[in-house]
Amino acid sequence: MKRSKRLVSMTRFIMERPCTLISLPFFAEQFDSAKSSISEDLTIIDERFRQEGTGYLESIAGASGGVKYIPAYSKDYGTPFVEQLCEKLSDTERLLPGGYLFMSDILGDPHTVDTIGKMFASVFVDREIDAVMTVATKGIPLAYAVAAHLNVPVVIARRDPKVTEGSTVSINYVSGSTRKIQTMVLTKRSLEAGSRVCIIDDFMKAGGTINGMKSLLKEFEAEVAGIGVLAEAEDEEEERVVDDYVSLTQILHADDRTKKIEVEPGNLLNRLS
Amino acid sequence: MKRSKRLVSMTRFIMERPCTLISLPFFAEQFDSAKSSISEDLTIIDERFRQEGTGYLESIAGASGGVKYIPAYSKDYGTPFVEQLCEKLSDTERLLPGGYLFMSDILGDPHTVDTIGKMFASVFVDREIDAVMTVATKGIPLAYAVAAHLNVPVVIARRDPKVTEGSTVSINYVSGSTRKIQTMVLTKRSLEAGSRVCIIDDFMKAGGTINGMKSLLKEFEAEVAGIGVLAEAEDEEEERVVDDYVSLTQILHADDRTKKIEVEPGNLLNRLS
Repeated sequence: MKRSKRLVSMTRFIMERPCTLISLPFFAEQFDSAKSSISEDLTIIDERFRQEGTGYLESIAGASGGVKYIPAYSKDYGTPFVEQLCEKLSDTERLLPGGYLFMSDILGDPHTVDTIGKMFASVFVDREIDAVMTVATKGIPLAYAVAAHLNVPVVIARRDPKVTEGSTVSINYVSGSTRKIQTMVLTKRSLEAGSRVCIIDDFMKAGGTINGMKSLLKEFEAEVAGIGVLAEAEDEEEERVVDDYVSLTQILHADDRTKKIEVEPGNLLNRLS
Repeated sequence: MKRSKRLVSMTRFIMERPCTLISLPFFAEQFDSAKSSISEDLTIIDERFRQEGTGYLESIAGASGGVKYIPAYSKDYGTPFVEQLCEKLSDTERLLPGGYLFMSDILGDPHTVDTIGKMFASVFVDREIDAVMTVATKGIPLAYAVAAHLNVPVVIARRDPKVTEGSTVSINYVSGSTRKIQTMVLTKRSLEAGSRVCIIDDFMKAGGTINGMKSLLKEFEAEVAGIGVLAEAEDEEEERVVDDYVSLTQILHADDRTKKIEVEPGNLLNRLS
């Protein structure tokens, strides 16, 4: 098969399988081509991805070796996206009672959600993550987007157990903002002991919900390998109970009475190279 | 820029933007190449996608023309995937009380969910869909996967209104299986009147939940442009109240007492060419 045709098919195949080891012999057989030609193809793909700042191919040597597509946005590539997002979020029309923000339109756009997911994946890709966890409902699309780029499963905690999931483990936690005691449950078979888990959520104020997920992970003897939130906001009443997290944006001075809001990039951009 | 490099970048760019019109001049400028070369590149990409049975490029002529990547799995490409899924679902360990099935592991795997999404998109891509709708929680990842391949937003109905979404419209519906009256709400600003909406859910027995979504769409003066479910199951008590739908799999004779289950491909495969 000609190089031009191979490059199209290989690029498609690789992009659909981030963080997945693909062996050179597999490609060689698939395209009926010499391994040396495949190797050259992969160099071209790697160079293009690096130049664009959207990722790279990691080579794994040895008999069981091959390549892995690593999602990695560069700071240059990511900055305009985050700035645009901050501008969108700064619209005072988004202000809802209690300092909350309407974000359903942003969370409802698959392309935006996918880009956000790849940003978080770029930061967490080195942390040997086994699963991405979130709590229903708003964080679900973000969690899937991150998990897709890390090639790991998603586990979803719920605030109410559902009959169709089998037996569950539940914990109680204190919601940071309202100081109410709440319940969070996770299906028993959804997570193995020892798993390294990345927690993803859409919004964090004092961090009570994220703390709830941390407690739940403890029950499963799983480890917190990273925490990512789309938007962090100040809580006037409570101090934040979660400290080591990555945020894409931070909401400052949101007030629905005075119709004021300020949104700035979070600490994620500084972690991209 | 050399053709080989262009092909990698163009394939990536196109794949990240299904159902999105991309103009030839945009590519020509981006890669500092003649429009005739870009045109040849696109022909190569189109041919590869068609040969693999995973989609094609639609050419739109005229001054505002360009190409659109249309996701379209061929029947040949889709059949092994659906058969494998049926086999996975046939595991009697999945049986839960009440004829339900444990599917969280399948719905938790982003690559599987993405493939399912592309299958539904292949069927619905000609229906001029403006949005994909589901009801929280299980259907959310599937809805996003379908929406991503159709390049449209997702709207999520809930069984309980949430403070952070603003004002809502609610309806009551009868759950087909349990005959209970339930409530479903959708945020007012999430859907425009006249929208053509594709309903996606993970599971359908009598179809009460889907009927609830249909009622909700009526309140928004929106139109049902398609209905897709991952698994349809028989309901011994109730006749199905929804008739025009696409299913990926059908569950026959699920019984957790006798530990029996049979899963077959649904009607989706017959709609692929």
